[in-house]
Amino acid sequence: MLLIGTEILPFKAMAFQKGEFLEVTNENLKGKWSVVCFYPADFTFVCPTELEDLQHQYATLKDLGVEVYSVSTDTHFTHKAWHDHSEAIGKIEYIMIGDPTLTISRNFNVLVEEDGLAARGTFIIDPDGVIQAVEINAGGIGRDASILVNKVKAAQYVRNNPGEVCPAKWEEGASTLKPSLDLVGKI
Amino acid sequence: MLLIGTEILPFKAMAFQKGEFLEVTNENLKGKWSVVCFYPADFTFVCPTELEDLQHQYATLKDLGVEVYSVSTDTHFTHKAWHDHSEAIGKIEYIMIGDPTLTISRNFNVLVEEDGLAARGTFIIDPDGVIQAVEINAGGIGRDASILVNKVKAAQYVRNNPGEVCPAKWEEGASTLKPSLDLVGKI
Amino acid sequence: MLLIGTEILPFKAMAFQKGEFLEVTNENLKGKWSVVCFYPADFTFVCPTELEDLQHQYATLKDLGVEVYSVSTDTHFTHKAWHDHSEAIGKIEYIMIGDPTLTISRNFNVLVEEDGLAARGTFIIDPDGVIQAVEINAGGIGRDASILVNKVKAAQYVRNNPGEVCPAKWEEGASTLKPSLDLVGKI
Amino acid sequence: MLLIGTEILPFKAMAFQKGEFLEVTNENLKGKWSVVCFYPADFTFVCPTELEDLQHQYATLKDLGVEVYSVSTDTHFTHKAWHDHSEAIGKIEYIMIGDPTLTISRNFNVLVEEDGLAARGTFIIDPDGVIQAVEINAGGIGRDASILVNKVKAAQYVRNNPGEVCPAKWEEGASTLKPSLDLVGKI
Amino acid sequence: MLLIGTEILPFKAMAFQKGEFLEVTNENLKGKWSVVCFYPADFTFVCPTELEDLQHQYATLKDLGVEVYSVSTDTHFTHKAWHDHSEAIGKIEYIMIGDPTLTISRNFNVLVEEDGLAARGTFIIDPDGVIQAVEINAGGIGRDASILVNKVKAAQYVRNNPGEVCPAKWEEGASTLKPSLDLVGKI
Amino acid sequence: MLLIGTEILPFKAMAFQKGEFLEVTNENLKGKWSVVCFYPADFTFVCPTELEDLQHQYATLKDLGVEVYSVSTDTHFTHKAWHDHSEAIGKIEYIMIGDPTLTISRNFNVLVEEDGLAARGTFIIDPDGVIQAVEINAGGIGRDASILVNKVKAAQYVRNNPGEVCPAKWEEGASTLKPSLDLVGKI
Amino acid sequence: MLLIGTEILPFKAMAFQKGEFLEVTNENLKGKWSVVCFYPADFTFVCPTELEDLQHQYATLKDLGVEVYSVSTDTHFTHKAWHDHSEAIGKIEYIMIGDPTLTISRNFNVLVEEDGLAARGTFIIDPDGVIQAVEINAGGIGRDASILVNKVKAAQYVRNNPGEVCPAKWEEGASTLKPSLDLVGKI
Amino acid sequence: MLLIGTEILPFKAMAFQKGEFLEVTNENLKGKWSVVCFYPADFTFVCPTELEDLQHQYATLKDLGVEVYSVSTDTHFTHKAWHDHSEAIGKIEYIMIGDPTLTISRNFNVLVEEDGLAARGTFIIDPDGVIQAVEINAGGIGRDASILVNKVKAAQYVRNNPGEVCPAKWEEGASTLKPSLDLVGKI
Amino acid sequence: MLLIGTEILPFKAMAFQKGEFLEVTNENLKGKWSVVCFYPADFTFVCPTELEDLQHQYATLKDLGVEVYSVSTDTHFTHKAWHDHSEAIGKIEYIMIGDPTLTISRNFNVLVEEDGLAARGTFIIDPDGVIQAVEINAGGIGRDASILVNKVKAAQYVRNNPGEVCPAKWEEGASTLKPSLDLVGKI
Amino acid sequence: MLLIGTEILPFKAMAFQKGEFLEVTNENLKGKWSVVCFYPADFTFVCPTELEDLQHQYATLKDLGVEVYSVSTDTHFTHKAWHDHSEAIGKIEYIMIGDPTLTISRNFNVLVEEDGLAARGTFIIDPDGVIQAVEINAGGIGRDASILVNKVKAAQYVRNNPGEVCPAKWEEGASTLKPSLDLVGKI
Repeated sequence: MLLIGTEILPFKAMAFQKGEFLEVTNENLKGKWSVVCFYPADFTFVCPTELEDLQHQYATLKDLGVEVYSVSTDTHFTHKAWHDHSEAIGKIEYIMIGDPTLTISRNFNVLVEEDGLAARGTFIIDPDGVIQAVEINAGGIGRDASILVNKVKAAQYVRNNPGEVCPAKWEEGASTLKPSLDLVGKI
Repeated sequence: MLLIGTEILPFKAMAFQKGEFLEVTNENLKGKWSVVCFYPADFTFVCPTELEDLQHQYATLKDLGVEVYSVSTDTHFTHKAWHDHSEAIGKIEYIMIGDPTLTISRNFNVLVEEDGLAARGTFIIDPDGVIQAVEINAGGIGRDASILVNKVKAAQYVRNNPGEVCPAKWEEGASTLKPSLDLVGKI
Repeated sequence: MLLIGTEILPFKAMAFQKGEFLEVTNENLKGKWSVVCFYPADFTFVCPTELEDLQHQYATLKDLGVEVYSVSTDTHFTHKAWHDHSEAIGKIEYIMIGDPTLTISRNFNVLVEEDGLAARGTFIIDPDGVIQAVEINAGGIGRDASILVNKVKAAQYVRNNPGEVCPAKWEEGASTLKPSLDLVGKI
Repeated sequence: MLLIGTEILPFKAMAFQKGEFLEVTNENLKGKWSVVCFYPADFTFVCPTELEDLQHQYATLKDLGVEVYSVSTDTHFTHKAWHDHSEAIGKIEYIMIGDPTLTISRNFNVLVEEDGLAARGTFIIDPDGVIQAVEINAGGIGRDASILVNKVKAAQYVRNNPGEVCPAKWEEGASTLKPSLDLVGKI
Repeated sequence: MLLIGTEILPFKAMAFQKGEFLEVTNENLKGKWSVVCFYPADFTFVCPTELEDLQHQYATLKDLGVEVYSVSTDTHFTHKAWHDHSEAIGKIEYIMIGDPTLTISRNFNVLVEEDGLAARGTFIIDPDGVIQAVEINAGGIGRDASILVNKVKAAQYVRNNPGEVCPAKWEEGASTLKPSLDLVGKI
Repeated sequence: MLLIGTEILPFKAMAFQKGEFLEVTNENLKGKWSVVCFYPADFTFVCPTELEDLQHQYATLKDLGVEVYSVSTDTHFTHKAWHDHSEAIGKIEYIMIGDPTLTISRNFNVLVEEDGLAARGTFIIDPDGVIQAVEINAGGIGRDASILVNKVKAAQYVRNNPGEVCPAKWEEGASTLKPSLDLVGKI
Repeated sequence: MLLIGTEILPFKAMAFQKGEFLEVTNENLKGKWSVVCFYPADFTFVCPTELEDLQHQYATLKDLGVEVYSVSTDTHFTHKAWHDHSEAIGKIEYIMIGDPTLTISRNFNVLVEEDGLAARGTFIIDPDGVIQAVEINAGGIGRDASILVNKVKAAQYVRNNPGEVCPAKWEEGASTLKPSLDLVGKI
Repeated sequence: MLLIGTEILPFKAMAFQKGEFLEVTNENLKGKWSVVCFYPADFTFVCPTELEDLQHQYATLKDLGVEVYSVSTDTHFTHKAWHDHSEAIGKIEYIMIGDPTLTISRNFNVLVEEDGLAARGTFIIDPDGVIQAVEINAGGIGRDASILVNKVKAAQYVRNNPGEVCPAKWEEGASTLKPSLDLVGKI
Repeated sequence: MLLIGTEILPFKAMAFQKGEFLEVTNENLKGKWSVVCFYPADFTFVCPTELEDLQHQYATLKDLGVEVYSVSTDTHFTHKAWHDHSEAIGKIEYIMIGDPTLTISRNFNVLVEEDGLAARGTFIIDPDGVIQAVEINAGGIGRDASILVNKVKAAQYVRNNPGEVCPAKWEEGASTLKPSLDLVGKI
Repeated sequence: MLLIGTEILPFKAMAFQKGEFLEVTNENLKGKWSVVCFYPADFTFVCPTELEDLQHQYATLKDLGVEVYSVSTDTHFTHKAWHDHSEAIGKIEYIMIGDPTLTISRNFNVLVEEDGLAARGTFIIDPDGVIQAVEINAGGIGRDASILVNKVKAAQYVRNNPGEVCPAKWEEGASTLKPSLDLVGKI
């Protein structure tokens, strides 16, 4: 089933952020833009570079009114320990959700059932809790958080300017297209 | 269900390429790398810019041993007509598949059922017919084909160098990570 | 199941008419007579001659209070493009419905499931939305719109003159039969 | 379900032809072209004019290698009686099938269940027993057998000339269309 | 299941009587005694002699307050034609029901499914619509309407004289038996 | 379901005949004609007159090659006792079957379930075990065994003279009808 | 399932007692003690001696406030006939129930299904309709009604003296046991 | 369901006899006559007197070739303890089966489900493992083992003398009845 | 399913304690701490030593506000007898529940179905009826009641000091751990 | 269902031991004794003290031929990290299994479904893979590994000395009980 355009399913989970444990539910993702970034496991290889890369964009994303959540099937205890012991992870300021029940990973169709681990999926969710963009890579292929920022901007632009669309390779400030009957079959 | 890591499902469809009609099945996607790029409809707005952008990368992708397929739920007749009449589309040299039975769009979980149109999904498939990367954007948000090239390279690198992984923001030639027990918890 | 005598099933679709896009539902077919003409695909062979032939009768049908709808599983975008680029189709003034969800084609039992295309079916529907006549030909066999006009007249005559019937080969103005007990077994 | 393109379903029935009773099964319809003409009931109003009209074309149809069958849910006894007593029906030379079990009428989707009578449906069936054309009219609207002859000729032409199609209003001898890629989008 | 003692099931059908068409339902059989006489088909062999024989008793049955209905799976149109053309049937004054939907024949368990024809069953039904006597013969064995009259009289006597029974071979006016405990085991 | 034309269902029961107990199964009814006569209960009112009446015809029926069986849901012990103590029943020479399991009464659809007693049904069965005639009367209405003899003769005549039928009121020696196409619609 | 301790199931049946027919239901067994004695069939071998033996105890049982019912699957008509003709049975004054529907025999789990006859079961039922004692013997083994009387007395004693029990071989007047904790493990 | 005439169901259990533990299965009951005597619980009130009474008849029953089994839902350990500590039970020489799984008590339909205890049922089983007699008493009503001996003798007599039956109150040596047709209705 | 943390299921049973019989239900276990100790059978080997050992801790457990229940599938009668006859068991003062219906043993998942006996399971239940600790040993392995006391103390400590936990080998008075975020990953 | 006495269910998982990652399946647990120790989560409170306590007994258990496995729903990566960073855990030499798929925790009925964490369960498994002892504590109550050693010894003694049992509080070297009939009811 296509997840794009659907509202996120209910979940309740414990998370770690800046030295505190907190509970996060699907309701927390409503009312502002969210980026949810799944990765397989704490204390593994590609993951810290991806998460660190995401941290580098966190301020930018915050400025865009976006909250960022990382999710793995580890517990929030493990998230804290990783944060304590890893230099890269120790810099992370966004919310790290623990999903040991596998619920959230199943909700977003990224669970690798035979491993009990999430695939590397990134989701952009609008303030209505509706998924607007999905990117999932097989193990081994890293993601680029700077592209994510562009995509968030495009999604926000489309939401704020109903009736316009962002063409391929669109970047903030570039001209958009205003769909009209005259354009049909003309581009 | 997670599509990453699964083999593509069977399909049979008519396609258009460089002035010819041809039949394409899931078997044609085996034996080399493939990019499958879904879009909603011929003769619409964002689509031609995305497809044109993809054409710009076609030579590069061919050099990487990748075949490119675009798919919409239009017929191959309409693909030909679009190709005949649109300057942007007329440049396209890759294979344009018609999916009026909606089968392929359903196989890749990108069908918007109430519209009968595909969402903007891009899939990288390895020579075994196994999906390695997925990107899907809501209507209005364009894709950037140059990023796709990088992702293909990363996927190929991982396949050709078992035991290494591409960290975040990896680009061709950059150093990769060789997972080893010593690295666990050390990055 | 016999479609004759049944009310048309619900649908909602986008259509193209004289340079405009419009939404059409089954409700739009109520209150006046309708002709619904299915054909396999835009930009194909027999189809334009049939649709052009239908256009030739459009004024006559309008005079009879009949609206005309053509339907294929293409989108309304493609209908517009075809209209823009084909001399024959460019003349069409009636409503061209896009059925990419295949719903209408299934409703009228004309969908060729393995192709995702409609068979060449023509339906006459009365102002109550009830199907009064059906004609379906296999691929390759064209239809003759002038015969359709005669059939519409006969259907209207029967509706307006309850208690009379049109014998074989009846044409407008010819005498009809008034069924009576005396006629039973006498013709 | 679309009947066009499907093989006729099995049946076994008694029939009347030229003073004799005979058994007819679906197998009898194989090996030559057939026209099957349903009508509601013997000794009724429109029916005899339609059946008489069909008789007028019987010689022509026979010359085209077509056998003709009329079917109602009456018995073959009643068919004989009607033939004996009606001047119009007395001229009929083709095969009149009795369908009191309602099986054939159900097979061809023309049974009006609440009446136990067949609707006015005409079917052209090719030598493989596959339905090529259907025409069904609501009660009161007569059929024109001369149009049927044209349609049979078109069906035979298409079968005998694979790769050509008959455009709208085609009549025997008129030029046909040879579908080719070049024609796509050009008519 | 035993039909004796059960109320007749609902039906609605067209019938022919003395030059008129009329609608008959199960409700019409309530309030007076009825005889319902099934036979296979109009224009066949034994049937007319049986139906003629029944007509000979019609006046007597009317005097007993009994209405008579014949039923076959033919239409009422065919009944009229048979009445018009057969000397024997032309004399019939009782109601001839057409059962082309096979409903009534199924209701009374007399339908020969593979033929679509009714077996030769005769039913006596009391003013409550409850079946009091059944007689069914295989094809070829005729019925004797005079015996039917006797049976009707016995059924009426039993209904009008609760507590008495008609012994074997009882005829009107003969003495009946009054069941009493003393008679148990004494006859 | 119509019993006429169906083979009798399997049963096994104890019976009484002329001072002896014997086992009877459905197989015993094969190879010769049979009359099976159900009645409600031994030691009751109408029953003995009916059974006595049947005995009066027993010799005639035997001459016709017919075996006679009476059946009630009493045991064979009770049949013997009734035979011992009733003058009327004491004359009976045919086979009296006990059906305390209610099996045979259910097989012939004559069981009154709420009473555990059989209705007054008479069946004529041919040497193949196929039911040829049924007569069932409500409680209180007696049967006439002499009519039964006529019906048996008619049934035997039809079996022995395939292609002829006995018209209404036929008695032995009377002329029968030879169905032919010429007779259709002529009687 | 254990019948002891359960209330008897509903039934309605005709019975014979001292020259009269009467209706008996399960409700008639409430409010006083009952003995229900099943046997296979009237006019058979062991049965009359058992029933006669039971009659010998009838006065005693009546004095104890017990009503006695015999039950077979014969009808009440047959019970009357047996009573009329058998010297032994003619003495019986208790109620003889007819169970031709097999309902009561099934209720008490004594029906031999393949014979349609009851096994030789005797039941003692208390004034609440609850079964207190069961005895069933295979065919051929007779029962002894005098033992039944003792058992009834014990059942009544236990009901009237809650907290006392009758040891093995207890007879009226003998000392009973008063269960107390001290007796546990002491007898 | 009637247990009389059915073979005992499979079971496997531990038992106690004369200072030893042994396994007993349903197979052990084949090949000789058996008496199976259920009682609620060890160390209770009526039970020991019944079991002691049964022991008094044990020698007699052994002489008749009968093995005796007592069964309660206690364990064989508890049987041994009861045997050790109770004077009455200490005399018992027959086999005391433990049925803590409740299997045997359920097999013989004597389990009081809400208590987990067996009702006071006694069964006589022939050498084929087929149940010939059942006696079950509600709690508080004792059994008399001497009557059991008589019943065993009757059962054995019937088995050894096929064709004879034991009338009511029969005791060993008394004359039996030889069922014959002449006796039907004569006793 | 995990029993820890679930409320005990409903049961009702008879028990023995200090010379009295009493009824115990699941409700009796609410409002105070309980220890429920299952064992296979009275009068067996390991069991008495375990039960005696438990008695030695009974006073201590009582002081801790804990009631103790032993459970086997024996009856309460057998419990009394064992208490009367065994020196070890005779000392027991806690409540000995009889579970002949096997209900409680099934509720606590300790029933060995093929034996009808409970496994050696010990359960600590808090005043809300919620199971806090489980220990089950295979046959032959004894339990140590003194460890049980420690475990009860730990369970009580945790309940009374929310927010503290007892580390491994904790004994009363030893320091506990106060979980805090700082401790995560620090022990 | 009782786990004691059942064979462990299949699983496959990654584990960490002494600086290495290894795969462990249920088959690895066969052929020697095993202790499987579940705990909720790495980097939490009671857990390290329990696991450290278990490590103290590891040498002793190894000497007894026992392999030790700890299991949590964390990954083996997290196990390594915990081992790297925790002084207590860093001493652990036994096998630490990661169960992120929750399979093993479900197999042993210790999964707290709403948390995705295992309860504190310890299992002793014999060389046939059959569970011999279970101990599960609610969160907060620690376990004592020294008791575990005693229980293992008892289990091994029972296995090696069939026919002997270990009484309560048994420790190695203490005398055991040899179950014999004489002992029944004597302890």
